[in-house]
Amino acid sequence: MTTLWDFRYAERTRRMKGSAIRELLSFAIRKDVISFAGGMPAPEVFPYDKFRESCDTVLRENGAACLQYGSTDGYLPLRELIARHSTRYGIQVEANNILPTSGSQQALDLLGRIFINHGDTILVESPSYLGALQAWKAYGAQFTTVPVDENGMRTDLLAEKLRAGVKFIYVLPNFQNPTGITLSYERRLKLIEVADHFGVPIIEDDPYGQLRYEGEHLPAVEVLDSQARSQVSNYSGNVIYLSTFSKTLAPGIRLAWAIAPEEVIQKMMLAKQSADLHTSTFNQITAYEVAKGGFLDEHVKLIREVYRERLDTMLDSLEEHMPEEVSWTRPEGGLFLWATLPDGIRAKDFFHAALEKNVAFVPGESFYANGGGENTMRLNFSNAKPELINEGIGRLGLVIKDHLKKSEK
Amino acid sequence: MTTLWDFRYAERTRRMKGSAIRELLSFAIRKDVISFAGGMPAPEVFPYDKFRESCDTVLRENGAACLQYGSTDGYLPLRELIARHSTRYGIQVEANNILPTSGSQQALDLLGRIFINHGDTILVESPSYLGALQAWKAYGAQFTTVPVDENGMRTDLLAEKLRAGVKFIYVLPNFQNPTGITLSYERRLKLIEVADHFGVPIIEDDPYGQLRYEGEHLPAVEVLDSQARSQVSNYSGNVIYLSTFSKTLAPGIRLAWAIAPEEVIQKMMLAKQSADLHTSTFNQITAYEVAKGGFLDEHVKLIREVYRERLDTMLDSLEEHMPEEVSWTRPEGGLFLWATLPDGIRAKDFFHAALEKNVAFVPGESFYANGGGENTMRLNFSNAKPELINEGIGRLGLVIKDHLKKSEK
Repeated sequence: MTTLWDFRYAERTRRMKGSAIRELLSFAIRKDVISFAGGMPAPEVFPYDKFRESCDTVLRENGAACLQYGSTDGYLPLRELIARHSTRYGIQVEANNILPTSGSQQALDLLGRIFINHGDTILVESPSYLGALQAWKAYGAQFTTVPVDENGMRTDLLAEKLRAGVKFIYVLPNFQNPTGITLSYERRLKLIEVADHFGVPIIEDDPYGQLRYEGEHLPAVEVLDSQARSQVSNYSGNVIYLSTFSKTLAPGIRLAWAIAPEEVIQKMMLAKQSADLHTSTFNQITAYEVAKGGFLDEHVKLIREVYRERLDTMLDSLEEHMPEEVSWTRPEGGLFLWATLPDGIRAKDFFHAALEKNVAFVPGESFYANGGGENTMRLNFSNAKPELINEGIGRLGLVIKDHLKKSEK
Repeated sequence: MTTLWDFRYAERTRRMKGSAIRELLSFAIRKDVISFAGGMPAPEVFPYDKFRESCDTVLRENGAACLQYGSTDGYLPLRELIARHSTRYGIQVEANNILPTSGSQQALDLLGRIFINHGDTILVESPSYLGALQAWKAYGAQFTTVPVDENGMRTDLLAEKLRAGVKFIYVLPNFQNPTGITLSYERRLKLIEVADHFGVPIIEDDPYGQLRYEGEHLPAVEVLDSQARSQVSNYSGNVIYLSTFSKTLAPGIRLAWAIAPEEVIQKMMLAKQSADLHTSTFNQITAYEVAKGGFLDEHVKLIREVYRERLDTMLDSLEEHMPEEVSWTRPEGGLFLWATLPDGIRAKDFFHAALEKNVAFVPGESFYANGGGENTMRLNFSNAKPELINEGIGRLGLVIKDHLKKSEK
């Protein structure tokens, strides 16, 4: 149907591309598919009863606030809870440094909106989080990349990139999406040192920091940056820190937050006002009721137990079922691990064969801002139950062996 | 505090202005203020119990879907419900023509994002809805205006404006925010005729259409446009229609929808994917549970009763307390009426005097895209109880009389 709208799209609309990955994912949600493709939490760990009780409580005791319009800056008790929570991890901030957003994706979008001019260059890890690349491309961003190895971003290559001119650095230091790799302590220090030298600020995206299954917690890049500047833990403001309730409570409530200097928060609020007025008061107040009184911390312990088992199961299954040409990361937390195939093998080429065996993954190339990674794949271990993980990796192993054999010919 | 972010704002960030109105509104939320300033529903009509029951039901029966990630296109049963609801009012659409958004503000933002190039001209009523002006200014829109009289947009002035080149027309035909005025049947026909002549599409924003307290329902602009084109009620797609649950269920759940040609919905979805991934599954599923089985229609009847009384009270109070130099509109529905003072009197000049008497309103000039309206004010009648409306209008009358007396000197 031709309508009067057809020739009226904005120029930027031409830059919007449906990610290939999301099209692939649409296949992966069939009930009979064992999916390692999405980034979904385990439905088994959602705190259903706590949500039921909390909805009941807040609608009884604070119903008018829950259902009425709220202010763009967000529900103050929730922001205070996030501030206390952050302070326990060394991020010394007040409620005024915190903006609740409609999921982390909105925080990425708002940051793009207030900072990115068409043609600006953003430094990202290679590979990096697809949602950030997508959000910022919409504002005309270009990317320069630094590869990731087993200790995270190759900070030895940073200076050369920053010298060429970069708006900001985007880093996922803990159990990075997509690789599961953690930025080492030494490299965190190096990152802030080089960034400081060139005067380039950092966006630190940390959706999984709470979900560590082994090893010691590493201080956030923000914490190290503040310490380096002031010798004490005052908030320096050069690192904008993002986190979310999506992985610790539930993604369905679309509730995340940005920590930033007050002036940046003010600009983000202006942008948010015209983007969606405010984040659901009902969801903010309910999430506060769910999280408060120590529930969140207790609940995260349960999630860690469940996901640790799933990660271990996947590592064991990979060991058992994968041909020796395939290698993979051994994450200490998070939701994903990353497998690498021999050079010249393309993960996309056996995606459909895998799907025919009812198993799905994400070909890794989508996570590369400037191309590459055709021989990689992202495997999510949080969503499927252990017995299904073993079954699914078994099937995937057969598909890959078969594919490698064909490729040799 | 100076941070590395300070000089890194995008050019568009300079165009973002906190609306004066919102700053004024921050005064108006003090508990002791009788506020005619906001656009808030009456907390007395929120269906608290229905929400409590519905949350309980959906978390028990469909909890995993409520708390998990969802798809950008939205919850299908909700879209089907909206499609059925729309069809009853003559808008013949399928679920695929409907995109649930995080409040109507997001629909306005997404439409700006996909259609507006920097410098594009949008035709709006004068005055018009502030949130639309704000959202589109952020994309570099300029505005051309057509004044509103007691029958709505002066469609006799349309052709001249459209001839100069306009991206689309934005109209609020029912009980317009801010004036409360309804576009007459004749002018609806004229609007679609002239728009069609110049090949200019229309965005019809209809948050209050259900809230009619007297007179007969008028067909949506979309309905008349489709009829004019096809002689039957097939969806023509030249009018994008927006509505919301904010005024009929609760604004705190941030749930609205856009009705548009499938191709436009696809573009909006791409934009939404990078803006916030998807609208809260929990809120979509809960709203569906609340609305279904006829509850929404029944509930709207209750709201109409309550608001009709408040509107009547405000009209009576104005008659009683306002000096004769002040005139006002007599809306047949919605949440607002519009008062006009003599030329040369500025509503802003007595805003603070009113606030000292604990009564608040919105000076009308904010609603004028290209200036004007200094002598107007918007009065909301939905939020305050009748006895407070009478008290508040009494105070406001005294403040205005006092101001007029001073102005004469």
